[in-house]
Parts: sequence; structure tokens; C-alpha cells
Amino acid sequence: MTTTLWIQQAMMITMCGEQDVVKGDILIENDRIVGLYGQSHHERQQLQQQLERMGTIDRTIDATDMAVMPGMINAHQHSPMNLLKCFSDDLKLMDWLEQKMFPAEAKMTPEDIYWGSKLSMAEMIRSGTTTFADMYIHMNEIAHAVTETGMRASLTRGLVFGDERGQERMQEAVDLVERWQGGAEGRITTMFGPHAPYTCPPQQLREVMELAKYYRLPVHIHLAETREETAQIAERYGQTPTQYLYELGLFEHLHVLLAHGVHISENDMSYLQGMQGGSAHNPLSNLKLGCGIAPVLELQRRGITVGLGTDGAGSASTLDMFAGIRAASLMQKLHYGDPAVESAYRFLQMATLDSARLLQIDDEVGTLEVGKKADLILIDLNKPHIQPLHHLISAIAYAVHGGDVHTMIVNGQVLMDNRELLTLDEQQVMKEGRKRSKRLVEGI
Amino acid sequence: MTTTLWIQQAMMITMCGEQDVVKGDILIENDRIVGLYGQSHHERQQLQQQLERMGTIDRTIDATDMAVMPGMINAHQHSPMNLLKCFSDDLKLMDWLEQKMFPAEAKMTPEDIYWGSKLSMAEMIRSGTTTFADMYIHMNEIAHAVTETGMRASLTRGLVFGDERGQERMQEAVDLVERWQGGAEGRITTMFGPHAPYTCPPQQLREVMELAKYYRLPVHIHLAETREETAQIAERYGQTPTQYLYELGLFEHLHVLLAHGVHISENDMSYLQGMQGGSAHNPLSNLKLGCGIAPVLELQRRGITVGLGTDGAGSASTLDMFAGIRAASLMQKLHYGDPAVESAYRFLQMATLDSARLLQIDDEVGTLEVGKKADLILIDLNKPHIQPLHHLISAIAYAVHGGDVHTMIVNGQVLMDNRELLTLDEQQVMKEGRKRSKRLVEGI
Repeated sequence: MTTTLWIQQAMMITMCGEQDVVKGDILIENDRIVGLYGQSHHERQQLQQQLERMGTIDRTIDATDMAVMPGMINAHQHSPMNLLKCFSDDLKLMDWLEQKMFPAEAKMTPEDIYWGSKLSMAEMIRSGTTTFADMYIHMNEIAHAVTETGMRASLTRGLVFGDERGQERMQEAVDLVERWQGGAEGRITTMFGPHAPYTCPPQQLREVMELAKYYRLPVHIHLAETREETAQIAERYGQTPTQYLYELGLFEHLHVLLAHGVHISENDMSYLQGMQGGSAHNPLSNLKLGCGIAPVLELQRRGITVGLGTDGAGSASTLDMFAGIRAASLMQKLHYGDPAVESAYRFLQMATLDSARLLQIDDEVGTLEVGKKADLILIDLNKPHIQPLHHLISAIAYAVHGGDVHTMIVNGQVLMDNRELLTLDEQQVMKEGRKRSKRLVEGI
Repeated sequence: MTTTLWIQQAMMITMCGEQDVVKGDILIENDRIVGLYGQSHHERQQLQQQLERMGTIDRTIDATDMAVMPGMINAHQHSPMNLLKCFSDDLKLMDWLEQKMFPAEAKMTPEDIYWGSKLSMAEMIRSGTTTFADMYIHMNEIAHAVTETGMRASLTRGLVFGDERGQERMQEAVDLVERWQGGAEGRITTMFGPHAPYTCPPQQLREVMELAKYYRLPVHIHLAETREETAQIAERYGQTPTQYLYELGLFEHLHVLLAHGVHISENDMSYLQGMQGGSAHNPLSNLKLGCGIAPVLELQRRGITVGLGTDGAGSASTLDMFAGIRAASLMQKLHYGDPAVESAYRFLQMATLDSARLLQIDDEVGTLEVGKKADLILIDLNKPHIQPLHHLISAIAYAVHGGDVHTMIVNGQVLMDNRELLTLDEQQVMKEGRKRSKRLVEGI
């Protein structure tokens, strides 16, 4: 059965070009965009023809006073960590990690993972994120939650080595890929996830690379998040973290999603130049943990894709990608002491198309185009903190927050309708989150 | 006639101490807090006694799942600039100012000022700001708007010199003070506002200081916002901007609100030590204009009060003080490369009590205490981006945004009730804002 949706009179930000913002209509058939129509006589005619072909329209949305744009794509997340949101803020990074996060995470059951990840999904849907890249454990649970909520996700089993369970984890990574790649009507894709240079020795990293090559899947790995990591890898291998991955051949034939990439030197960039994939910038997490400012613009100038993520809520405290866009832009202005250093549009692009590129799904999402999947959000612009609307792109980068997202659609399905979640029982999710998080942090 | 209000079962953040967060009830009589009651048997008895004394309660608010705290106090604003929000982002500061802001502001009529400031008030009320310090022109209009909306404000006629209209402006400053000091049932206070070191030569600055002394009122002045200012004042007077003000005796007997204070050297701090008043930190504006990071913690360590502001929406693009709290905290973590450098609580304090100190109204507002004015906000905590609630102060600093403010009260009057504005016609304000802003930017 075909389902059809007609979005009327929205300010369309297609993300296909900075000037490409026009008022118009969008037609969706099943999971795909089948038409985008501006105001010209010719386009209105085309709209009429398409409507005639489609017959009955199941749902129309009057989007006057709204913007429509591709959904946010969160390129780096640990969704179950939402259970530990604001549990241990304002601590030194190693205290935060070793005294708080690790002991609490060690208590997580598969059911905790399921509910924690659903809580993240409730927050993400409410704040306009349609897709996320997740690296964690018990990924089956997250895959089930994705299946149920209707979101799109790239799932990765995080792999750390150093104890006897390395091979077991590797098997779970293979199971995830075998079972879930292309799952949930294609909404789920997968990657291989060696955790980081400091948790993955050369031999094991090579094994993971072989698997990724065998399955023709991308690799998702943390890189150069902290100064400590740089010091540790220098001591262990006499290399920078980036060089370490380069020398192992990680950037040769694989598509790689590098999370963070804060401490990347001028020389390191030459190792990354020409790579497939790129870096996921997590400004709010990097600031919160005192890590520093990633060289976003330098990477981009070398042709390296930089997408945008939040990192887990355990560090970032929020999954609001609009807050991330603003922070990313402001950090570069600060870094260069130059407010004109880059346009707001470029940071919106990072959160949509560039993140899609990192997840290797940019042929399907990341822009509003005929033939692409219908993953999009409607933003209510009729609010005092957004009006008057001199410049829509600026307003979205600097004035809009996640709470302004009115309606969101993934794969043609409405997941939030006028702020009401349709695929999640929000009260139940929060109740489970409260109950489980209490147990996790007890005595820590 | 007495009006009474009973807020029940809220998480009370009194801002009288970091540990002082308890569930309880608040009683308000007319414009003041008359009781705060925790859960102990003794406190519940006191509540009952107070209720008996008060007789009929006009309104009760069930604040289960809500936090109550002092309203945000925005210590530096140019409220009518909301008409120019997102009009000229991502430009060099001088281009932004001279090619965009000045020409558009030059067209502003008193009516534009009135509506622009009302638009700001709609945004501020919606995002939990109860009080703001404003420096602009046509202050009568803003005073009328404050009278109508029920907000609290410290109003300042900005004084620039260098043309023949200096004395005329000075007269307007005197008129403002004479007419409005203590106006709107005491909600309006006033200051004298020499604009900045680079727009106020010594002689004129001395004249303004004399006026402030005569009227026993504070001074509100921009200081050390940009590198350019430092260079300009060095060239003109062979001094730093701070030293320039110090040598003129500004910090001797006057209470002074210094807006920005970004480029303050170690030596400059010795000029400020012991001052009355302090500095208003505007993190989002400073970042957006590429100004740098203000030495907030250094100033505080020297006993200098630092409050929090947004600056005008023309630069900051948002008046959401929660975004400001997060930005302020994250900037200091970044600056020191240390996530533990200061607690989240301290930044909440800046946005409430410390801002109240700058406005010299901390005997009346800035904390929840018996006898103080009832200026407070209720924050809805039952949302997926806030739950589970491990640490309320952290959640407010890092997870809450202005849209989570449920209800707000100024001077005992409810200005927003469950997201509905009661003293402003929001649609009319936005309509006027759109119409007027269009005229202002035409051809610029």
C-alpha cells in the first residue's frame, strides 16, 4: 500500500546550495521525496501533475511559518549513556571516566542499554535528529530500539582490547553486522568500531581492518580526543595517534569515521588528506571535558569531510544538534579571532550532508532532493526568539533550539507530529530511565 | 487588596548556597516571598500556620516535577536590537557595526524602539529572564514597555560624544533618571550610561560621573570588548581602557557595571580590585564577534563581581540566559583546559545573584528568600532531555534551555503561565517586529 504526504508552503532549505532557500511544497510517497516545488507558474503546474498521478493524499501538513530541512545527523553518539546525563559534571576527564562512567557502565544490563538508548531517541526526535551513529555494547538492544522508534542509525560495537574478552567482542561485532546491516527497512547500517588508538594494539586493529574490508563496511574509531592520548601514544609507539592509524594502513582502502579529531597537527593532516570518510566534530563534549578546539576549518580546507556529533549525553549533557551547530561555529570564530571566518550555512551542512557522508548514506539522506529518503524536520519559526526573520540560515544556526522542531519524518514516517511523539511512550521511557539510572550510580 | 500565591512541591533552588536544594512550597503575598518550606514536620507546621494567617489563597500552582529558582537577570542588553537579530551575522566586527548596525539603528523611531524592546521582552519572559539591564536610546519607550509587560529593568540612556548632540543626550539621561527611577511600582531603576572609553572623552566622562554622584546612581559602561578598543585607547591616551577609567576616578565612589571586560590584563585587575559593582560577562556575543574569552574566574578570585548578560540580539542572536550559562561555563573549561575549573553552580549564581549585585538590586532579588521580591521561574523537568535527574544544578547549566521555563513571576505577578504570555500580545509584537525591521534594513 502506498502512503502519501504533502507538505505545503514551507521555507525549504534543501542543503543543496546556500542560495537554495525557497518557499514551496514537498511531496512524499512511501519512504521517498517525489517532488519539491517552488512558487513559479511552471513549478505549480508540475505540482498539480504530480498530485494527479498520486491520487489521494493521505496527509497534508500546512507548513506556513515553518522551515523544512533535512533532519540532523548526529555523527557520534553513545546513546545509552543518556542514563548518566549530568551525573558527574565538572570533573577532570580521567576522574569522570574512571571513577564515574566506567563503574556505572559496568553495571549496565542489556535492558538498561535498550531503555537508555530509547531515552536518547526520545530526546533526539524531539530536537530534530533523524539519524545517529552509535558506538556501544549490547548493540542488539539498540537495533531493536531503532526498529521500534523508526529512526535511522549506523550501529557499531565498540571494541577494546587488553583483557581476555577481545575476541568475544569481535564476534559480537561480526554478529551485529551479519544480523543488522540493512535492517529495519534499510534504516540500520553498521560499521566496525575499534574504540581508539590507545585501546587497540596494532595486531588487533589489523584484524578489525580485515573484517571491515571483508564485509565492505566502514570503520568508526575515536581519535585524538585528549592531550593525554597524544602523550600515551607517543610514549607507546613514538607516533601521534593519527600517524599510528595511518602507518597501520587504516586510511588506505577503508571508509573511516574519526570521532573528535581535536589534537591533529599540521603534519597529521597530511596523513588524512585524500581519506575516505572524515572526522566527526563534537564541540559541546570537547568543551565540557576541556579537550580543546578541533581544527575543523583546516581539515575542511584540505578536503577532509567534517561532520557534526554530540558525543554521549554522559559528557555533552545534551543531544541538541542545534546547540552543537552554534557551538561549532562560535568555537571557530573564537579560535581565529574572526567572526567572518566561515558562514553559518557551512555548519548546517556539517550537521546534515557532511554527517551523512561520514555515515556513507549521503546518496540517501542529508539533503532534500527528489529520489532521496524522506528524512526531514519542520521548524516552527513563528516565535519571538526567531522573529523577525532577516536570514533563515543564521536564525537556524544561532537562534533556533531543538524545542523549536515541530514535526519530524524519517523514511516517510512521521515520528513526531506537532511535538507529540508517535513511536515512543515518552513517560514510560523516562520512568524506566529514572529507575535504571538510580541503580547504575548507586554507591558511585 | 492582597493577592496570594502558593507554589507546591517544587525542587527549590534558592541560590543561597550550593547545597540548598530541597523540595518544598513557596508562599507569595502581593509582590513578596513570605515563606519557603521544606519537607520536615516543623516546616510543614510553619506552612500551615502561615496559610491560616493568609486566609484565602488566590492561586495554587502544583509544581511537582518542576524546579523553582530566582529568575534570570540579564546584566547587559540593548533590547530594541532584537529587530536586527540575525540580520548581519558572520561579519567582521567593524563591518557588522558600521555597515549594518549603525545605518539600521539610525532609522529607528521611538515606536520602533518600543516594539523592538517588547519583542525582546517576549523572548526574555519565554526563556526565564525576569530582569534586564538595558542601554539604548529613546528610553521612555522602553520604560513604557517595561511598565506594561511587568518585567523588572535597569534602564540607561547610552551616551556617546563627539558630535554636537552630546549635551542633548546628557539631558535625556537626566530626564530618564528623574522620571523613571523607582517607576512601575519600583520595578524600574536607572543608571547613567557613558557608552565606552572610546566614545567618551575625559571631560564628558567626568561630567557623567558628577551626575551619577549627584543622583547617587550607578554607571553602566562598555569596557574592553575588542582588541581594537585596546589599541585605540593606547594610541589616544597611552593607557589600557581599564586604566583610562581608573585614572578618571570612575571606580572611586561609584557603583559601576562594566559590560564585557574581555581584554583586561593582570595589571588592569589591580585597578578593579575593591570596586563597587563589577563586570557583566556576555559569552555568546563575545564568541559571535570573535572578541575572545573574558577572564571571569580571575576577576572573581580578586573579589570582583561578575554577572551574566547576553548583549543585544543584534550580536548574540539569542537572549536565552540558559545558553549563556552553558557558554560561560564551557568557555572557562576551554580556557584553562580543565573541566573541573569551576562548578556549574557558580555560573547559575552569576546569572542570578551576581547580576542582581551589578544592578544594585540584590537586596530585593537574585535569591529566593523570605522578604525578597517574588521574581521566580518554574522549570518543567519532566522531559527526555532532562531526565533522569542525577544533579539538578548540572541539568540546569548544561541540559535545560529557555523553552523549558513553564511559568514565570515578577513582583508577584504571573507574566507567563504554562507557556502562555499574560501581559503581551505575542502575535502583535511579532507582526510589528517584522514590519518595522523590514523598513530598518531596507537598502542596507
